[in-house]
Amino acid sequence: MNTLISNFKDNMERTLSKDISIQIGGSVMIKGWLHKKRLLGGLAFINVRDRSGLTQIVVEDKDEVEKLRGLQIGTVLEVTGEVVKEERAPGGAELHQPKITVLVPVEEAPAIEIDKPLDHKPENLDTLFEYRTVGLRNTQEAAIFKIRGAITRAIRNHFHENGFTEIQTPKLLASATEGGAEVFKLDYFGQEATLAQSPQFYKQMMVGVFERVYEIAPVYRAEPSATTRHMTEYISVDGEMGFVDIDDIKVFLSGLITSAVDAAWGEYDVELKRWNATKPVLTDVFPSIPMSEIHELYEKATKDKIADLKDLTPSEEKWICDYAKKKFGSEAVFVTDWPASEMKFYHKAQADKPEFADRFDLLFRGVEIITGSMRENRYEVVLKQLIEKAKGNPEDPGFKYFLMAMQAGMPAHGGFGMGLERLTQKIIGLSNVKEATLFPRDINRLTP
Amino acid sequence: MNTLISNFKDNMERTLSKDISIQIGGSVMIKGWLHKKRLLGGLAFINVRDRSGLTQIVVEDKDEVEKLRGLQIGTVLEVTGEVVKEERAPGGAELHQPKITVLVPVEEAPAIEIDKPLDHKPENLDTLFEYRTVGLRNTQEAAIFKIRGAITRAIRNHFHENGFTEIQTPKLLASATEGGAEVFKLDYFGQEATLAQSPQFYKQMMVGVFERVYEIAPVYRAEPSATTRHMTEYISVDGEMGFVDIDDIKVFLSGLITSAVDAAWGEYDVELKRWNATKPVLTDVFPSIPMSEIHELYEKATKDKIADLKDLTPSEEKWICDYAKKKFGSEAVFVTDWPASEMKFYHKAQADKPEFADRFDLLFRGVEIITGSMRENRYEVVLKQLIEKAKGNPEDPGFKYFLMAMQAGMPAHGGFGMGLERLTQKIIGLSNVKEATLFPRDINRLTP
Repeated sequence: MNTLISNFKDNMERTLSKDISIQIGGSVMIKGWLHKKRLLGGLAFINVRDRSGLTQIVVEDKDEVEKLRGLQIGTVLEVTGEVVKEERAPGGAELHQPKITVLVPVEEAPAIEIDKPLDHKPENLDTLFEYRTVGLRNTQEAAIFKIRGAITRAIRNHFHENGFTEIQTPKLLASATEGGAEVFKLDYFGQEATLAQSPQFYKQMMVGVFERVYEIAPVYRAEPSATTRHMTEYISVDGEMGFVDIDDIKVFLSGLITSAVDAAWGEYDVELKRWNATKPVLTDVFPSIPMSEIHELYEKATKDKIADLKDLTPSEEKWICDYAKKKFGSEAVFVTDWPASEMKFYHKAQADKPEFADRFDLLFRGVEIITGSMRENRYEVVLKQLIEKAKGNPEDPGFKYFLMAMQAGMPAHGGFGMGLERLTQKIIGLSNVKEATLFPRDINRLTP
Repeated sequence: MNTLISNFKDNMERTLSKDISIQIGGSVMIKGWLHKKRLLGGLAFINVRDRSGLTQIVVEDKDEVEKLRGLQIGTVLEVTGEVVKEERAPGGAELHQPKITVLVPVEEAPAIEIDKPLDHKPENLDTLFEYRTVGLRNTQEAAIFKIRGAITRAIRNHFHENGFTEIQTPKLLASATEGGAEVFKLDYFGQEATLAQSPQFYKQMMVGVFERVYEIAPVYRAEPSATTRHMTEYISVDGEMGFVDIDDIKVFLSGLITSAVDAAWGEYDVELKRWNATKPVLTDVFPSIPMSEIHELYEKATKDKIADLKDLTPSEEKWICDYAKKKFGSEAVFVTDWPASEMKFYHKAQADKPEFADRFDLLFRGVEIITGSMRENRYEVVLKQLIEKAKGNPEDPGFKYFLMAMQAGMPAHGGFGMGLERLTQKIIGLSNVKEATLFPRDINRLTP
């Protein structure tokens, strides 16, 4: 009898939690983690978690209940049982008459409770991240990263379907691309290297090769303050296209964001609802509003006076997103006509309005998630701007190869960079970008 | 008449090179780079390159030929012309009666010739990389990275179809995971940080959350020598699975490599043939050979004596691949039964043969491309091994969170790491891993 059961179990294929309801009336074997345990009289009600979800199990047999004594959440189990229809159980079925095998016992209670939603209040985030490696076992917490995975896949598909070639460019550089203080430096066999703040020059250079390129990879900013919007390491979604104008980039990006939103809601609407998320309202091509118009509208509506007309304040960003939602039916809006005075040396001014950069920011749900622009593609002009505007040395290795590519013939081109964490954050409705990051990095946190 | 033509051109959609043959008998407008120019009598024969390939154009009109005078390869052009069937042209058609618009003139010849195959001889690689940003415009060179893109997509799909969650883990760490000297260090706001040599502990921790995880991201090795197999920065394909044994990992990997090979050959067989590549012969599940048997077979066949029985020499790696191809019909072979004495503290020995690690290396076409193993999943055992074997401090931030995850309950699990560049190199048949890298990094090269 024992031999029989043992053989039976050995030969039985594991069933995932999500699939047990297909086998109502039959027997299944599941494997996973003890996720919840309630003792009621002589009975035990347990949940077992695997990669697909939870299975509810009713344990009545005294010997089986005994096996669970002293075992903590996280214990690794194999359970064979009869599948019984039960509407209130996850997946519409539960296991009865279980035979339990403890694969790996856990005798200490987990560092934080994982069977109810974790506290995301700002003052609790430090605890959340300190115990991240256990806290992510909470299914609602893990859902953030499954949603992020769906978003990432949708973005890659959108690039691929539009003829982009995926590139992977080095993060170890001889000198800082964007300049400035916010750069990490390291010793590279006796010479100084920096960590890439963006793949900016590489993606532009590769337009000369592949015409349309994208990269999804980490970038590094030695951001000396802890905010809800910034990290020292994040995943940048970078795209760059040749033979386009700024409107082509806007059309492309409207499609990209829409694909990401549709994928998230298509695959994870239950999980999104559990986060109280609402599906973003978006138009086919997102509306564009010139910056000066935003200042005017905002000042008129709020009676606030804007001091710096060259940028938007965080309040304006929030306000204009609400405005665009009401007025145009879009929770994403392009801010256009940035002053040319703020351009970087590789940026391009508008042909017909040279006082403005040929640039946009994309605001989504109150925050900037993308900056995009056309680049100066004429070698002589970009060389001049590097020397005069940026006081850069054309022989500096950070510029030399970039200029080499420009000199070899570059079409009109432009592109954008987007923080993957910010997009994920805003789709789910989290209040801090770090909540959308498995192991966030900021000035105070280099672990886990 | 001029107005008419001009309007006609403005309203005309751009056609990609690969699509012009669909419009034989009609007119098309193309945009791209001047890729080749031959003058013959009063005629010019030019090739224009865009992201999809080349278009051949016959220029007869004197004024149009004149426009090309002095213009170098790389000049950005817009060309409108009649599509004429021509079997010998790329895509089976060429343009006649072209009207040429020079969008961006290039007046200096490119730093290296790009209209014929570039020289990949070892002594020329430095030049190849120095002028990489221009040299990649050679279509055969660019094909390496289109093939690499197809391989990467196939790998991601294979992970996704098998229930893996994509993760992105930090590359900035508080201390070195694998220890050893080959680690880059940097100043992180006054404290020392290191660059990740692998996502090893993170992927293991995330098995406790997602059960199956993968990451495709850069890793860093301060490799103090320049070889044909190593770089200081490369893309590591990492997978980790729970509730599996070593055979499950082998089956998964056999499918993964086969998918990658099939995708490369399915999408880019023309380009692969141009590199004289042959499609790898592979079995459903790749064969396994114990290390001791390889030593024996090799010594018998070559009369060489192996000094270090704990590892394979490069000659043995080559030899056993040839052997496996002949004997089993597979150019990929798992080397099993590595001595337990060489295990890291988080590795597991075989249950029935504890003198051997539960590990394999996957050799492909003469070189190791993957190392995989089962991990020690019992908290008490891994803690003991850390202290006794690795002389590690459990409170070290590099170990503390890893141990926290182990203590919270971990099933039997294992995984692998693979260099994306090595796989690409071996599929195409390149002799140096750097040739499969856009901008390689080694002790001597931090640019471009």
